[in-house]
Amino acid sequence: MLLVSTSLFAQNGRVWAKGMAMTSKEPHFTPLEFTRHAVGDNDILIDIMYSGICHSDIHMGKNEWRPTTYPYVGGHEIAGRVAKVGKNVTKFKVGDYAGIGCIINSCGECDHCKKGEEQFCEKGMIGTYQSKDYKHNDEITQGGYANNYVVSEKYAIKIPKNADMKRVAPLLCAGVTTYSPIHFSNVKKGDTVAVAGLGGLGHMAVQYLVKLGAKVTIFDLTEEKRADAKRLGAVAYVNVNNPVELKGQNEKFSFIISTIPAKYDPVMYVNMLKMGGEMAIVGLPANENTPTMTSSALVYAAHRKVYGSLIGGIPETQEMLDYSVANNIYPEVEIIPANKIDEAYQNVIDGKVKFRYVIDMATLNSAVKSNKK
Amino acid sequence: MLLVSTSLFAQNGRVWAKGMAMTSKEPHFTPLEFTRHAVGDNDILIDIMYSGICHSDIHMGKNEWRPTTYPYVGGHEIAGRVAKVGKNVTKFKVGDYAGIGCIINSCGECDHCKKGEEQFCEKGMIGTYQSKDYKHNDEITQGGYANNYVVSEKYAIKIPKNADMKRVAPLLCAGVTTYSPIHFSNVKKGDTVAVAGLGGLGHMAVQYLVKLGAKVTIFDLTEEKRADAKRLGAVAYVNVNNPVELKGQNEKFSFIISTIPAKYDPVMYVNMLKMGGEMAIVGLPANENTPTMTSSALVYAAHRKVYGSLIGGIPETQEMLDYSVANNIYPEVEIIPANKIDEAYQNVIDGKVKFRYVIDMATLNSAVKSNKK
Repeated sequence: MLLVSTSLFAQNGRVWAKGMAMTSKEPHFTPLEFTRHAVGDNDILIDIMYSGICHSDIHMGKNEWRPTTYPYVGGHEIAGRVAKVGKNVTKFKVGDYAGIGCIINSCGECDHCKKGEEQFCEKGMIGTYQSKDYKHNDEITQGGYANNYVVSEKYAIKIPKNADMKRVAPLLCAGVTTYSPIHFSNVKKGDTVAVAGLGGLGHMAVQYLVKLGAKVTIFDLTEEKRADAKRLGAVAYVNVNNPVELKGQNEKFSFIISTIPAKYDPVMYVNMLKMGGEMAIVGLPANENTPTMTSSALVYAAHRKVYGSLIGGIPETQEMLDYSVANNIYPEVEIIPANKIDEAYQNVIDGKVKFRYVIDMATLNSAVKSNKK
Repeated sequence: MLLVSTSLFAQNGRVWAKGMAMTSKEPHFTPLEFTRHAVGDNDILIDIMYSGICHSDIHMGKNEWRPTTYPYVGGHEIAGRVAKVGKNVTKFKVGDYAGIGCIINSCGECDHCKKGEEQFCEKGMIGTYQSKDYKHNDEITQGGYANNYVVSEKYAIKIPKNADMKRVAPLLCAGVTTYSPIHFSNVKKGDTVAVAGLGGLGHMAVQYLVKLGAKVTIFDLTEEKRADAKRLGAVAYVNVNNPVELKGQNEKFSFIISTIPAKYDPVMYVNMLKMGGEMAIVGLPANENTPTMTSSALVYAAHRKVYGSLIGGIPETQEMLDYSVANNIYPEVEIIPANKIDEAYQNVIDGKVKFRYVIDMATLNSAVKSNKK
């Protein structure tokens, strides 16, 4: 049983929450009690079962993108069960599975919101953590390394009953981040495509591409990933550190998705595109490590298109989730207890995590207790 | 009459030529006598009437792209009259108008050459100047600031009899460089599009876009270009130095062509694209001034595609030329004598040229004489 039950409400109907927080840019987590806004008429309260660890959580916590407000509760890959519904809610009933990704609200009125591209909301999407919630007195949102979350039903994702709850959470960020550009670029059966970087994002991209019937080559830096690439259905693996393997890759692919979370030369991959081919960049390293390309290099790599892609809107996230569950596409996860987040962060930073860590939030109470000893 | 008649041949049938050359990276021209390879069975000899001055000529001469071999005769916008044809030549007869752009040969056998994309020849296109001509003993090609040129008929462009010869030369580089991406991105009637940079390239881009029926906004840095923009058919002009005018430009255009030959922020323009819109970069500044963009900025400017474009192949150059002449699309030119190249270069470097200088090669003799005084 959780230390603070979600049935307990604070002043003005605010919801007590308990989570794991960073209090400085050092990646060290301690328990935090806090409140979330009340469950409004259109809101649901989710008891969180699993929360994925995304590299973005770490960049955000470590102050690597923009100034962080501490204490900071990360987590925007959230899967749980509906514990309470507002009186106007129609999409969910108590007991349903529900998920939250990177977006918990937006203006709802601009052209992008109307088209279901809430991530590009003109007023700004409200992020699951570290975001000023302009719909709720500008309070700073706290993420999903916690026992619960309150969210408008419109921004919550329905998780089918038959979903594997242990593995579903990372789909809500890593899943849609890779699913979206694959469909934006209209990848089709038989296409020769590539995935640069076989980590949390990359291993999702491979699965979507393989399912579509594309022929996938994976690029990464180590021999250890070669067997993973094969297991995931890639037709080829290129160790970028091996010049011999790199040879002959130019002008080969109609689509490349780059998930690389570090400094690299994007134009090396642009040159691997066939003319008219498209490269989608989804990796977002720390600002100081963001890769650069020159316009002159693009001129010489002529007729190859580069674009960035940023998660996906709510309708597309729902579409991706339904598709993933129906096709048994999940991340490969390592389930950890809430008192192991420090270690998990260090492993992600050191590149030691295989694909995705997921925190079992049922372990939150014991993490809190062990911390009090 | 030219000092060295094209009817005079040197040893092994080599052709005497006379041109204006730089002998160091200082943009100063002096007369140069040199020879070109013999007129082979598939070659034509062109008596050059007009030769355009492209910013590329200056970058190349000033050592700003790669090491220059001196003496250097620039010029890859060449229009003239056929003076001699090899015995297998069928495309031209003596007296026809003919032009040469940036490409004078290529391997002819790779996939790109077979598709008429000679600029991407796997062995490397042979450029009109400063290029190792691997079809002719690796001699370094000399450009069109000269009285003649010898070229394979396949790489020469037919210029219709009704063309305005004074203005046709710059089409062979500036024309195709802008025509090509407009068609690659499939710009259509009614599209809302933009041209960044209203110079030699930009003023060609506007004309092609207006002719297609697109609604063109032009971006440049000065008030002086506002009237030019209107005269060329643009619906709007934005002075980038005026923050008020810059407001409201985001997410507006389905296509942008950037011809800017200097340092700038490409992502500012990327953000002006609608989602799914495309920005073609054709400007190639000196290496030290090449603009950069970060992959993170592209992620935040999501779903907007950027690509480079590099001149055009021979078939597309012919298509562009026929289209331009048929539709009376020409550069605005200032005709200068051969002894004014130094001054013209300085004006281009200082941004003082309006659109395009074209050298009247009939003045070459007097340039040579005045130099000998």
